Amino acid sequence: MPRTDFSRMGCPIARSMEVLGERWAILVMREAFYGTTRFDDFARHLGIASNILSARLKELVEHGMLERVPEGARHAYRLTEKGRDFFPAFLALKRWSDRWMAPNGPVVRIVERATGQDIAVPSPAGADGQPLVPEAVRLLPGPGAGEAMRRRLALAELADG
Amino acid sequence: MPRTDFSRMGCPIARSMEVLGERWAILVMREAFYGTTRFDDFARHLGIASNILSARLKELVEHGMLERVPEGARHAYRLTEKGRDFFPAFLALKRWSDRWMAPNGPVVRIVERATGQDIAVPSPAGADGQPLVPEAVRLLPGPGAGEAMRRRLALAELADG
Repeated sequence: MPRTDFSRMGCPIARSMEVLGERWAILVMREAFYGTTRFDDFARHLGIASNILSARLKELVEHGMLERVPEGARHAYRLTEKGRDFFPAFLALKRWSDRWMAPNGPVVRIVERATGQDIAVPSPAGADGQPLVPEAVRLLPGPGAGEAMRRRLALAELADG
Repeated sequence: MPRTDFSRMGCPIARSMEVLGERWAILVMREAFYGTTRFDDFARHLGIASNILSARLKELVEHGMLERVPEGARHAYRLTEKGRDFFPAFLALKRWSDRWMAPNGPVVRIVERATGQDIAVPSPAGADGQPLVPEAVRLLPGPGAGEAMRRRLALAELADG
């Protein structure tokens, strides 16, 4: 069975996974958020083979997360607006990882430069101020919903009573 | 070169990628957050081959994101506490995807059941109330930092002035 082309899937999250659903991609973005811009520094900090790093950087550039710009005799990889806008999602992922995947505690603490205080990563909350849980939400078709999704959500609403 | 074992990497985000850094994994979690519990429903909603779905569900169960529980004559896959705690990171990823990967607009709107209002996904903000940007933060070694990370961060601080 051929590999599914996620970039053609209707779901925006699936389209994101075409670039971010590769184990190294998020770690390359981590490095970019941590200030790394040079190929050699990405390679050293990630402990990644050059050919894999090249491929990942190329894909992140193609998907508009990073741009490759001349810097002196070489190149630098800089975050684009789209890449920078991924920072909140990265921080939410880091918070979850630090909570569930860090038996010795977080490896990196992120503090605000201006205050020296650990940054706060807020969770979506309901009208009652409590963290939003999956059962507290309903799904409605958005403007990009196709016929199949509209039908599915309508059936779910019926089943919900 | 053998596939790197991310589960042995020190970085908690890398460890997360051992399970979530696979294109289908986040989409299976999407379905779980959207209320899907049965194998056949996951398969239908995702349009995924049974053998791939089996493998992904098995991994998500092994990593403690889902649990497989008897339900009538069959089984249901239910979110664990660890899986449920991924909901905020999922919502942050969805928000970014809807903004950058949804040319026709979001496919799914998520509203709060109690109010019918679209949910708000807050971004981390600095002390000035503005969204936190990568340049506004500093990295410090956390309790789980190894020697190499401590050295790296100390050098970065020196370079920073």
